[in-house]
Amino acid sequence: MTEQKPTIAVIGGTGALGSGFALRWARAGYPVIIGSRATESAEKKAAEMSAILPDASIRGLENAAAAAAADIVVLTVPFSNHRPMLEAVCDAAQGKILVDATVPLVPPKVARVQLPPEGSAAKAAQDFLGDGVHVVSAFQNVAADLVQDLDATIECEVLVCGNKRAARQTVVEMAEAAGLTAWHAGPIDNSAAADALTSVLIFLNRGDISHAGIRITGERDG
Amino acid sequence: MTEQKPTIAVIGGTGALGSGFALRWARAGYPVIIGSRATESAEKKAAEMSAILPDASIRGLENAAAAAAADIVVLTVPFSNHRPMLEAVCDAAQGKILVDATVPLVPPKVARVQLPPEGSAAKAAQDFLGDGVHVVSAFQNVAADLVQDLDATIECEVLVCGNKRAARQTVVEMAEAAGLTAWHAGPIDNSAAADALTSVLIFLNRGDISHAGIRITGERDG
Repeated sequence: MTEQKPTIAVIGGTGALGSGFALRWARAGYPVIIGSRATESAEKKAAEMSAILPDASIRGLENAAAAAAADIVVLTVPFSNHRPMLEAVCDAAQGKILVDATVPLVPPKVARVQLPPEGSAAKAAQDFLGDGVHVVSAFQNVAADLVQDLDATIECEVLVCGNKRAARQTVVEMAEAAGLTAWHAGPIDNSAAADALTSVLIFLNRGDISHAGIRITGERDG
Repeated sequence: MTEQKPTIAVIGGTGALGSGFALRWARAGYPVIIGSRATESAEKKAAEMSAILPDASIRGLENAAAAAAADIVVLTVPFSNHRPMLEAVCDAAQGKILVDATVPLVPPKVARVQLPPEGSAAKAAQDFLGDGVHVVSAFQNVAADLVQDLDATIECEVLVCGNKRAARQTVVEMAEAAGLTAWHAGPIDNSAAADALTSVLIFLNRGDISHAGIRITGERDG
């Protein structure tokens, strides 16, 4: 008897980063729901992904319905849609983990750090959703095209921030299931580090490096 | 004929991080001035360091005098001393590069990101000192005890932020002279990434890793 994995709804699941992670989680055995503003778009994307992974459990629903039907809600939306999406899933996310991968980029200067007044997108989400939702930030630094390529090895490691260790651990396991190395990186305030790093990585990508990411160095204890 | 290297004043040069970098720069051939609030302390530290590196040019001066006598001013002070030190060196630093290694840690919760209203310590320095000073942030993420050990290889890479590319390049070269790998990481606003990362690294050090640092990953072009 295999352990039943929690169902993951990916809000913004038709986008590059969201659909990439949805594929990787589906491949790892998580039931996945693609969320979109239009049910039809969500169902279409889910059908495309099911064609790639015929044995996986993938379906499409409108965002709020997707959040309601899932155990874990993942937000991968442009920053300009962040607040409206939080409003859309707020009720459905109560009592659940909400994984926020949103990066507060402010076009056109996306290589310049411009953090929101709350400190980070995920902290803004935690403030808005309230303590009934366990917001965990992750995946802000990963290149979407690498995530979408199921064969790609992703060197960039994942900083996982949130106020509850158990919720962070669930997201560390999701990262590992998607083939990434992840770290407990502290409370939700620490999301500012990962949010800010994304603009630095965009700046580095304009130099002589592609797919810039970070890896944690140091001496492993024990 | 060898090129004359610029003279570096290390404000807070009697501390662990400052004295470590001062030693490494002196070893690489930079004339170094140790700055301290008391001339006597600065001279004492400089004498200790000269005993380790007899061929190097190392002397001690009071902070403002050290800044006045140098081409490049480096600030390695606790965040609580940041503003007073900026006031002390403001006049002497005009027209020069000021390298700010200050991390805005707010005790007792140093593993929690708590960025200042300006966004980062270095941005606060740039705002305070004005456009006459080229503020460049660097070295916020490096473990002081490793820097002090002249034989230690430091895996942690350095994010170098500042509004002028030429000033950043000078600091990239100082980092390389000290044995570190460094990156142009964007404008001074991007210092927030390195500042915030320090609290994340402190958090990681409480887990099963020591001397946590970061390395940039990606594919080198060309």
